[in-house]
Order: sequence, then C-alpha cells, then structure tokens
Amino acid sequence: MQAHRAETLSRVSDSLIETLRAMFGQRLSTAAVVREQHGRGESPFRAMPPDAVVFVESTDEVCEVLKLCNAHRVPAIAFGAGSSLEGHLLATKGGVCIDLSRMDRIIGVNAGDFTASVQAGVTKEALNAVLRGDGLFFPVDPGAHATLGGMVATRASGTNTVRYGSMRENVLALKVVTADGTLVHTGTSAVKSSAGYDLTRLFVGSEGTLGIVTEVTLKLFPLPEAMSAAVITFEDADAAVTTVIDAIQSGLPIARSEYLCTNSIRAINANSRELALRERPTLFMEFHGSPGSLQEQTELLREIALQHGGEDFQWADRPEERSRLWHARHHAYFSCQLSRAGSMIIATDTCVPRSRLAESIDGAERIMARAHFPHMTFGHIGDGNFHVLMVIDPGSEAEREEAEKLNEAIVELAIGLGGTCTGEHGIGFHKKAFLRREAGDAAVQLMQRIKTALDPHGILNPDKIF
Amino acid sequence: MQAHRAETLSRVSDSLIETLRAMFGQRLSTAAVVREQHGRGESPFRAMPPDAVVFVESTDEVCEVLKLCNAHRVPAIAFGAGSSLEGHLLATKGGVCIDLSRMDRIIGVNAGDFTASVQAGVTKEALNAVLRGDGLFFPVDPGAHATLGGMVATRASGTNTVRYGSMRENVLALKVVTADGTLVHTGTSAVKSSAGYDLTRLFVGSEGTLGIVTEVTLKLFPLPEAMSAAVITFEDADAAVTTVIDAIQSGLPIARSEYLCTNSIRAINANSRELALRERPTLFMEFHGSPGSLQEQTELLREIALQHGGEDFQWADRPEERSRLWHARHHAYFSCQLSRAGSMIIATDTCVPRSRLAESIDGAERIMARAHFPHMTFGHIGDGNFHVLMVIDPGSEAEREEAEKLNEAIVELAIGLGGTCTGEHGIGFHKKAFLRREAGDAAVQLMQRIKTALDPHGILNPDKIF
Repeated sequence: MQAHRAETLSRVSDSLIETLRAMFGQRLSTAAVVREQHGRGESPFRAMPPDAVVFVESTDEVCEVLKLCNAHRVPAIAFGAGSSLEGHLLATKGGVCIDLSRMDRIIGVNAGDFTASVQAGVTKEALNAVLRGDGLFFPVDPGAHATLGGMVATRASGTNTVRYGSMRENVLALKVVTADGTLVHTGTSAVKSSAGYDLTRLFVGSEGTLGIVTEVTLKLFPLPEAMSAAVITFEDADAAVTTVIDAIQSGLPIARSEYLCTNSIRAINANSRELALRERPTLFMEFHGSPGSLQEQTELLREIALQHGGEDFQWADRPEERSRLWHARHHAYFSCQLSRAGSMIIATDTCVPRSRLAESIDGAERIMARAHFPHMTFGHIGDGNFHVLMVIDPGSEAEREEAEKLNEAIVELAIGLGGTCTGEHGIGFHKKAFLRREAGDAAVQLMQRIKTALDPHGILNPDKIF
Repeated sequence: MQAHRAETLSRVSDSLIETLRAMFGQRLSTAAVVREQHGRGESPFRAMPPDAVVFVESTDEVCEVLKLCNAHRVPAIAFGAGSSLEGHLLATKGGVCIDLSRMDRIIGVNAGDFTASVQAGVTKEALNAVLRGDGLFFPVDPGAHATLGGMVATRASGTNTVRYGSMRENVLALKVVTADGTLVHTGTSAVKSSAGYDLTRLFVGSEGTLGIVTEVTLKLFPLPEAMSAAVITFEDADAAVTTVIDAIQSGLPIARSEYLCTNSIRAINANSRELALRERPTLFMEFHGSPGSLQEQTELLREIALQHGGEDFQWADRPEERSRLWHARHHAYFSCQLSRAGSMIIATDTCVPRSRLAESIDGAERIMARAHFPHMTFGHIGDGNFHVLMVIDPGSEAEREEAEKLNEAIVELAIGLGGTCTGEHGIGFHKKAFLRREAGDAAVQLMQRIKTALDPHGILNPDKIF
C-alpha cells in the first residue's frame, strides 16, 4: 500500500526551490555539504542527501513547508540532532529535510505540575540544565545528544527507563503538523485522560512518518534527595544479569542498571584513564531516594550481588564521581569506535522479557564469537534491553555483510524469545524486515492503513518503518 | 465521515440470526430481558437493546462473529461486565452484542517477568486473587467490578494510578480482532519497544470502536513489603488537595490519595456503621514500601497535613482495617445512590493539571451549590481527577436536564483549566461534544480518519466517541 503511494513521489523542482527561497532566504540550503550532513545519522548507511534543507524557526513554518511538499508530492523528512542509528534520515527519494534544531526554546516549566513544554529542537541536556534550578529533571536518557523531538520520534528510552519509563510514559501532549500542513494538538497537561484515541502515543515512535512534532509537553520528576552509584564486577554476563533481575524481583526501585562486557570496559579504559576499571563483566548501578531508603537499597543490592559472586564493589556518592561514571557509560559508543582506527559502528538493539535476558545476551555473545572484527555488548538490562556494537571497517564489504548477518541472528534470537527487534533505536530503514517478522503481517498492514489514512500521498519520511 | 458510514448500517436479519444460532446454539440470545441488560451499563441512559447477544468463548468465535457482522454491515458491540458509565453499550443502531464474560481464563502468570496474560473477560478481582499466592498484584483499580477487556477499552485507572499508572502504562500486549475479523497481535512481553506504531496504546481507550480485545498481557507489581493507610479530615477541599499536592511535590511516593466530600462521608456512614467517620472533607491515603521507608513516608505526610489543618488522624496498618477503608471507598458510588430511594446517578469525571485541582473542585462545588438534588464529590486527587455524583430522580425530566447542564458547566471548567473531559470513564455516547471542545476539530478528524481506515463500514460500536 505504502510502496504503491511512494512511487508517485517527486523530486524537489526548481520552482519549489524558488518558493522556499522566497520564504526562508538564507535558511534554505542546497549546498552539497549541508545536504549530505542531513542525509545521514549515526547509521552505517552511506548518506542519501535530500534535495534541500530548510532551517525552520516556528510551527507555522513547518505547516507552510508541509503544505508545499504535500501539494508537490515531495518527501519531507524531519531532522533534529542527526543522532539516529537506523537510517531514519536517509532521503531515499530526495525531498526537503526540515531541520528543527533552531526551534530550541523552552516554552515553559510548571514546577507545580512537574511539566515542561519545549520546542522540538531542545536537547535533553539543555532542558535539564534549566530544570536543575527548580529541583526537577527529565529522566529519559538515551546515550546520544538528542533533541526531544527526535526522542519522541523514536520512542527513545535509555539508562533511567527501568525506574522512570521511556518517552512512551513521559510525553503528555504534542503539537504535530500532519502531512497536509494541519496543526494538531494531542493530549493535555492532565496526567491522564480517557478522551478518545491516544494520538499522543500514536505519534510517539512514528519516526516522522505520520506528522512532524514541533512542541512537546513532558512529565518531570523531582531531583532525588540522595543518589548513590555502584560499580560491581562479575565472573560472567549471567551473574550480572541475574543480580539485576533478582534485585527487581525483590522490589528494589533501581534507577539505573547498566551491563558492560569486558570488551566495553577495555574500550572505556583505553579512552580514559580516570576510572581505571577492572576489565571484567561489570554493572554500573544507581539508586535514588531519601538517605534512609538509599541505605536500605544499597545494602540489599550488595547482598544480592554477593550471592552471584559480585566483586570489586565501588560506591560513588559524590556528584562528580557519579558524573564521571555516567559520562563513561554515555561515551561507551564512541570509546568502542575509537578502539579501531577509521572504523564505523553497526549497532543492534534488542529487548526481551527480563526472564529471557541472560539467554539472550549469552546467545548474542555466542553468535558474536564468530565475528572477524571487534565487538562489544552493553545495555539497559533492567529493561531487558541491550546493544551489540560491531566495529567494522567501512571500506570492507565483507565486514558489512558479515555484520548484517550477525545482526540478523541476534534479532531473530530476541524475537524467538518473545522480545522485540528494537528496544529504543527504532525501525528506520534498517529493520523493516524485522518489524514484519516480529509483529506479523496483520499488524503491519494495520500500521500501513493508519499511515495511508494520515498521509495519503506518502510524503512523510518515505521508506521508513515499512 | 463516521456519520456518513453509519447510515449504511443494517439491523440483524432473520437469516443472520439463523446463522448465529447454528454456530452458538444456546449461547445466542434474542430474549428481551437479556438484550435489555446488554444495552445499558451503569449510565443514566435508557437501555437501547441490541438485536441479539452472543456469549463467545474464544478469540476464533469473535473473529467469526465480526466477519459476519462486517459482511452484513451490522453493528457489533463488545460487552464485559456492563459497568461503563457513559453509554458505551447503547445499541443505538441495533446489532450484535458480543458478551466476553465467559472468556474468563487466566492464560498464564510469569512471576519472573511480572506479567500475566488473561482473556478479556477476567475481572481484576479474579486476577488479583490468583496473583496473591505469587506475592504479586495488578494495580489498576477502578471502582467497578470491571473486566480487564473493558478496562482496556476505557483506558481505566482508579485509586492506585498516582503510583502505578493507568491501563495506558500497564498493558504490554493485546490480541485484538478488527472489524473484518482479522486477528492482530500488538506488542510483546518485553517492557519496551521502538518497533513501529504503538498499536497497543491505540486500542487502549478506543472503546470497542477499532477492534475487540480478546486477550491482554499486563504488567504486574510485587506486593509491597508493608502498607499503611491513613484517614485525615480537613476544614475544606482546598486544604485536603493542597496536602496531597505538597506531598507529591516533596517526592512522597503516595500509593493512593482519595478525597471525599462531607456528603460522601455522610453517605458512607449511613450505609455502614463500621467506620463511623467524622463528617468532614476527608482524605483516605495509602503508602507502600519497606517498613523503614513507610515510616519516613507517613511521618512526612503527617507533618504536611498538620500544616494544612489536618485533624482526626487514624492509621490503618492491619490488612482488615485497610480492606474496610477501601471497601467503603469503592462502594461510595452505591452509598451515594442509596442516600436517595429509587434514585439514579449521573456521574461526571474530569481531570486537570494538579496545580489547578483546588480551583477545579472549588468551582465544581460552587456550580453544584445550585443543584436541586443531592450530590457528592470524590476522587483520585493525586492524579487531578475527581467525580461529581448527581443523585437524581430517574422519573424527573427536569432533574435530568438540570444534571446535564451542571455536568456541562463542570466539564467546561475543567477544559478551561487545561484539563480533560474524562479522566477515566471515557467518551462513550455521552461526552462526544465535549471531546470536540477539548481536542479540537483537527484532532477529532484525525481520530475519525483512523476509525475509517480500520473499520471502513463503521460496524464497531457505532455512535461512540464521535
């Protein structure tokens, strides 16, 4: 259905460029370097540049651009920080890239309601820098320096999700522009509602294929009274995973629980001597609460970890110690890339029911044992979610092909264990076949019917998800 | 769009009855008493009975019935426990009522993953009775003795939502039969996913208009190590509301926070002498945690309540004391009804951002001061959600009309304060105009496009939501 529509799409014509230039002046670019930078994310695909890039500054401008694109049957692709991993930004059929990074205004923070409204181009770091003064924070924490609009689009999650939820749970309301340039408001600032279809959740995770998000109202949380982080090493992945699962089953409200394999730790150590971690399978954990509850939590965790052979306990209570730890975790991706000169990363991202996680990680590590290039495993194991990073030579077709085969085996394993082909990176261009295997034809057809109903000409981010 | 489609709907023909009788035998009923019981909920509307009722026992049977209804352009209305409040069950254009209450099998509990899969006709009470043995519970707790399928359909919430979320947050996966009889699986047992559109959340709250849910996979929680409930009285609603808001802003993880007005307490006392509550604006609260954290929580709450003039503190730590309290709260609806012989209730249900709640309750109480019949206010104030119950004489058109006008004023006030026309009861037949006022034409049109894409002949629960 979608494929049929997409055949009728057009490239950006000279006259459309003229119209856009009259509206945007210097904020329209057709320069090759700008187009190329906008036609890739952090994905391993070669850039497929859009025909033009517009740097929008308001919701009204997004409406105007989409009206034009829809009338001309030209693809429209939203761009935030360019950090997506699954080829979401590839302009497979050319078109206009709508860069929202200049829509970076924090519209308002309501400390009484624990809500903030932001334009789509605000990054989570920029928001949290402002919230700190109010004793609040926004918890969703993917590794990338992403915009909140982009995080809506991929239904992002990250290190804190085990405690605070993902973008699915933490978006209250949206302003979205649909394919024909209509502005739609979804949701309200009330924390719950039973009023009609959940359009907010439909747009969250729709990867720019149903509409372009221009404003987001988010749930906030009070900064915890006290926080404590821990580093613990284990004999193997199984012991680390079992420690976290047991802790969750004991009702321990873990705030973060990150597993890092020996290769990941080695890459982190090579990139920074500050932490000097022991090179073994490792957990980075964090606890939030009152000082009293924190002590209870850390004692219980220690007991559980000891039962599974946990060693080298290090506790980081001071803010700068914790920052150093989480900085290392967030830069694990880049540390892995730096471990091989001139390399590129193919990252996969699966999520399984927690009870199948040890099996899933063990299976992935067996699959990766065949690889002819460096690789690392780490992830948000409290959610059942982990990533395998394959550090390949971008010039080697053999390594690319091998990586794709290993990726496929890991994803198949996760689906077979009742899990999903992507916990947080999205389908994009890369995982379309996996979506069909996971969800089945009937569900994918239903998604396509929704796509066609909302975007009849298929102009919004074509060739993604389907 | 929807209205246009609905005009082409047919009533159930004799030949369709014959076909259904051949399939269902005694499990098909056309008896007036059965039809009437299935054409009403707890809503104040007069019953509009369906033409026939089928008591299904499997997902396959739902597929078969929907195929027939779709082919005959006959309405199909799903029925669980019949506890909906907004006219969801009215067979405005006749049709087949599909009663799922015999699909009451708990398919499986996975204690390791904190998940359970149930057929749609299982009630939350039945599920929790089974879970207790595993030290687990399912938290979503509307007042009604509802089925989990019905709770999915209305995006139900209730007393525990402030801590554990609503059906929006606690459904992982569904089996749904769409209008043409196709079985669709949505979601997985993994706790998060970025794989395609969030069909699960689209069906949650769709009130039987997009598909009929036959199986639900739910998130579970460990039974708290310790629980403590509290009853506190206040001078007025404002003091009670401010106590809860301040507690939430202090990071207190309240598990339940129910406000009951003086009239509600009076109705509860009249109905049961067990509690003998002081007849003043009252909070029923509950805390969950470890014994240590519980003590911290209850002490902090006490301090905050005292600052707002809280009195008559009663703590209920023993299970039977807590049960008595929550039983009284859950039966507040019926206690109110019993306060006037032969009466009927029109209940409204709004939800506003928490910072506007005091204003919203105060405004509602001013509006109700004009009423010529008894009325009560209570609700889940940690969520910003409360109900006004209007106890009318069902024979009096004047009281019905007056109640509708007061309802409208309360809902308008909530929408004006940035809230929603329904926190948990749904739109149904009753609140269609309010949905449009709240969400705006563009959002409602989008919902209608989705409806038409998924149910082109408009057979699924016609005249609801739109």
